[in-house]
Amino acid sequence: MSALDECQAARGEAARTCLMPALYLLPSTMADGKVTDVLPARAIEVARTVRHFVVENIRTARRFLKRLDPSIDISALSFTVLDEHTAPDDIPPMLAPLAGGEAVAVVSEAGCPAIADPGADLVAAAQRRGYKVVPLVGPSSIILSLMASGFNGQSFAFSGYLPVEPAARSARLKEMTRRIRHERQTQIFIETPYRNRRLVEELVAALPPEMLLCVAVDITGPSESIITMPLSGWKRALADGSAPLGKIPAIFLLFS
Amino acid sequence: MSALDECQAARGEAARTCLMPALYLLPSTMADGKVTDVLPARAIEVARTVRHFVVENIRTARRFLKRLDPSIDISALSFTVLDEHTAPDDIPPMLAPLAGGEAVAVVSEAGCPAIADPGADLVAAAQRRGYKVVPLVGPSSIILSLMASGFNGQSFAFSGYLPVEPAARSARLKEMTRRIRHERQTQIFIETPYRNRRLVEELVAALPPEMLLCVAVDITGPSESIITMPLSGWKRALADGSAPLGKIPAIFLLFS
Repeated sequence: MSALDECQAARGEAARTCLMPALYLLPSTMADGKVTDVLPARAIEVARTVRHFVVENIRTARRFLKRLDPSIDISALSFTVLDEHTAPDDIPPMLAPLAGGEAVAVVSEAGCPAIADPGADLVAAAQRRGYKVVPLVGPSSIILSLMASGFNGQSFAFSGYLPVEPAARSARLKEMTRRIRHERQTQIFIETPYRNRRLVEELVAALPPEMLLCVAVDITGPSESIITMPLSGWKRALADGSAPLGKIPAIFLLFS
Repeated sequence: MSALDECQAARGEAARTCLMPALYLLPSTMADGKVTDVLPARAIEVARTVRHFVVENIRTARRFLKRLDPSIDISALSFTVLDEHTAPDDIPPMLAPLAGGEAVAVVSEAGCPAIADPGADLVAAAQRRGYKVVPLVGPSSIILSLMASGFNGQSFAFSGYLPVEPAARSARLKEMTRRIRHERQTQIFIETPYRNRRLVEELVAALPPEMLLCVAVDITGPSESIITMPLSGWKRALADGSAPLGKIPAIFLLFS
């Protein structure tokens, strides 16, 4: 009898809480606030039921699970770290519970796993071996900011951080401008929080004043602010101090 | 006294259900299944509370709200249609309740509003007038398929439908291949369901056999399947009939 069959036999009506053996991708909160504001009941149910977790940081993952449900018995769970220091050979063994008919969940530090974190390597390993991969709904700063920007969502690109080296950075901004104009492609990128203000100053100086910039800060958090203005408007907001560009996580979108 | 103040005064402890005047972007379900599988409690709460809705199709929007909460009094709600036939001048008046201190919600036909539907024009109008825009968490086939693909999520582009005209289509596939190779950018696109199989046959014929294709069908639905294989593997799956390419909504991702 498989773990799933046993579970279903034991639980009858509640068999829905029996998880099929799959790699579940479990989003995490991105900001302070209620967990139920950003996670559907199904994601919370999976988090409560899975016993094997792959995480970037064990301490924050434990804290997240306790926030989800204070009654969770953390000591009964297994946690394996997958971060940028993990050797490639150490990744496939993290899928071992699947072979035994048990579920494994990947949790990211913030937002959707396997989008901008090492979880993608584990997903790729699961796909190569033909294991089922189940993504769960949760907050994505990329999609939430795109929705609220008013920009083209039929064509968009996310490119992570801008290059730091000045010539490469300038070339990237030029190419993004070209893709906005010729492909009507919304350009989305991020910056380390303490450089938010400098980045906007730089965009104001480098790009045409009529180009539209959307800055989304503290998405899903208590000070959430998602504002679209032409760069000429951002220039004024920088000058009069009204630009909401504190040292908190932000995401930037350009379009025209 | 504003509508928000009145509501808060009247409800006391339950003041959380009083909505500030903002344009709420309310995702909808994408497939059959429980609403609580894909929408957080907060999104359901907002849907129950808002009185002014902007929708693509009134009948499906009403059905969606009834599925969310059968006790909702649909007759007390206002519905305004925003679709591809809406004249640009008819869009700003849809924001009128905001000036009166009331909330407005945009609901899409499936998934996240204002990503690939006319809702983006209403969001742009709200941003131009300085109204608050609040995106709510829900299912996005783009993000869910990207999470489960195992592909690069640090850099990706969604480009909607491929061009239909053969020369433009071939040029687009060539440019996507270039961006995968030179920018390590995951390429995401869609196709009308009845052409799923033909599209995969076309990709198998046009692109190198080692390139990776992820096909995600019926995301969040009962027959959800998200499979990544090299094109050589898809070729075999097409031949032996094991490729899950029914006439249901699918999204396609390429990477190498």
